[in-house]
Amino acid sequence: MTGIVEISRSRFFEGQQIRFQHHSEVLNCDMTFGVFLPPQAETSEVPVLYWLSGLTCTDENFAIKAGAQRRASELGLAIVCPDTSPRGTDLPGEHDDWDFGSGAGFYLNATRAPWSNHYHMYDYVSKELPDLVEAQLPVTDLRSVSGHSMGGHGALMCALKDPDRYSSVSAFAPICHPSVTPWGIKAFSNYLGEDRNDWLDWDATQLVCSTEKQLPILIDQGTEDDFLGEELKPGSLEQACICTHHPLDVRMREGYDHGYNFISTYIDEHLNHHAEALGLI
Amino acid sequence: MTGIVEISRSRFFEGQQIRFQHHSEVLNCDMTFGVFLPPQAETSEVPVLYWLSGLTCTDENFAIKAGAQRRASELGLAIVCPDTSPRGTDLPGEHDDWDFGSGAGFYLNATRAPWSNHYHMYDYVSKELPDLVEAQLPVTDLRSVSGHSMGGHGALMCALKDPDRYSSVSAFAPICHPSVTPWGIKAFSNYLGEDRNDWLDWDATQLVCSTEKQLPILIDQGTEDDFLGEELKPGSLEQACICTHHPLDVRMREGYDHGYNFISTYIDEHLNHHAEALGLI
Repeated sequence: MTGIVEISRSRFFEGQQIRFQHHSEVLNCDMTFGVFLPPQAETSEVPVLYWLSGLTCTDENFAIKAGAQRRASELGLAIVCPDTSPRGTDLPGEHDDWDFGSGAGFYLNATRAPWSNHYHMYDYVSKELPDLVEAQLPVTDLRSVSGHSMGGHGALMCALKDPDRYSSVSAFAPICHPSVTPWGIKAFSNYLGEDRNDWLDWDATQLVCSTEKQLPILIDQGTEDDFLGEELKPGSLEQACICTHHPLDVRMREGYDHGYNFISTYIDEHLNHHAEALGLI
Repeated sequence: MTGIVEISRSRFFEGQQIRFQHHSEVLNCDMTFGVFLPPQAETSEVPVLYWLSGLTCTDENFAIKAGAQRRASELGLAIVCPDTSPRGTDLPGEHDDWDFGSGAGFYLNATRAPWSNHYHMYDYVSKELPDLVEAQLPVTDLRSVSGHSMGGHGALMCALKDPDRYSSVSAFAPICHPSVTPWGIKAFSNYLGEDRNDWLDWDATQLVCSTEKQLPILIDQGTEDDFLGEELKPGSLEQACICTHHPLDVRMREGYDHGYNFISTYIDEHLNHHAEALGLI
C-alpha cells in the first residue's frame, strides 16, 4: 500500500474538504481524489459514500457543484470522489474524444491494449481506493455508492457485481444499458473488444439478471435530460428489474436536465437514503 | 432600455437558473448576467438579492458554487449575479493581470482613459441592471446586496452610497479599505488617477463616515483567509463604524479560508438576514 499526499484542504460546514494524490497500482499511474470528512470524523470513524462522476469530470466537480457537504456534515457521512479515468498516461488517442479515454474510464477493467495497461477503473474504485481510504483516513468499512450518468452506471455496477461490499446504491440519470447505446458501444468496443459477450459483465441491465443479492436501487432522472432517450434508457433497467423482481425506484423529475443543478436539487434525498442504510438515521 | 436575450435556462430547486445577455449602455458593451428565480416567481413578483462576485469571477461562479438556491427557493428570493467587469472591450493591458482590468472592475465608475469609456460598474450594478431586471423579470423593486471579496466591497459601497435603494447589506470576506491596500491601490490608481482625494468616494471605510442612512452591516470572515491581513482589513471598517456608531456585525469564522467552501457554509445565514429585511420571514 502506497501512501497518500495531501494537495489541499479547506474547512467546509465544520468538516474538511481534502484533495489527495497517490500512486495507484491497479491503474499504474498517479491519481488524485477528493474526500469530505464531516466534523464527526474528528472524534470517531464515519461511513463513506463513494461518488462516481460522469463523462469529462474529474474528482473535483461533485465537491464544487453538488452542494452535498451541508447534509453530509449533519449526517456524519464522509464522501469520497475518485477521478473518472487514469491520468498522465498519454496513450494514443486517449485525449481525442470527450466521451472516450481520459475522463471516460467507464468504471470497467479494460482487456484490450493499450487500455488494459491502465484502465482498470472498476478495481480502482471498488477495491484499491476503498482499501487505501479505510487504511489511512478516519472512516469505517461501511460503504455506499452513488454517481451520475457514466458514474451512475458505475455505481449500479459496483452494487450489482459485489453487493456485499455496499450498504446501499443510488444514481442520478445513469446510463442504464451501455451495451446498446452509443457512448457505451464506443467505450466497450475499445476497452473490451468487439465480442459483445464480453460486454455483458459490464452492463447494469444485464447484471440485474445475475446479481447474487438484490440491493434496492434508487434513481432520480430528469424529464428534460437531453440524453434520456438515446444514451440513458432507464426503461431497459426497469424491465430487467421487473423480470427479476429486483427492487427499483425510478423517480422522474419534471423539467430537470442532465446537469448539476438537477443533482443539487435531489442530493439530500440520496444522502438520506444512504444514511438510513448505513445506520446514521 | 435594450432587451435581454436568454442564453440558458435550467430547472433548479423547483425554480429556474437563467443566464441572460444584453447590451449595457453605461458599460458600452454586451454583458451576461445570471438570475435564480424561485418557484414563487411563477405566480407573484419576488424581491431580489444582488450578488457581487470577487476578482477573476464571472456571473457564473456564485450560481455554480455557493449552494444558495436551496434556501432562496424556500424563501422566495431571486438572486441576480452580474459579471465582474465589462467584457469584449480588449483595452490595452485589460487582460494582463488577474487583479486588474477584465474580471476586476471593482464596482466603481472609472474616470481615467481608456477605462472611463467602459468601466462604470457602479452605475451598472446599482442602477442599469436593477432597472432592466425590474422591467423585464417577475421581481419587485425591493433589493438587498451582498458579495465576496472585491464584490463584498462593492456591496458595502452600494449600501453606503445609496442606502435608500437597499433593504439590507452583507458581505463575505470583503475588501474593507481598498485605498490603503495593494489590490485597491492598483485599481484606484489606474481607474481613478493618482489623486487620492478622488479615491475616498469609492472606499467603504471612508464612506461609513459620510453615509446618510445607517444600514446595518453583516460580515462573515474566515480566520484562515490568506488575504485577511494585507488586503481585507476588516479592523479598519470596524474602527470607522465604532467612531460613527454605524451598526456592524463582523463574525470571525475559525479555520475558514477565502473560498467558496466558506461562502457555502454561511450563505444560508446571509439569505435569512436579507429575507428578514425584505419581509419574507
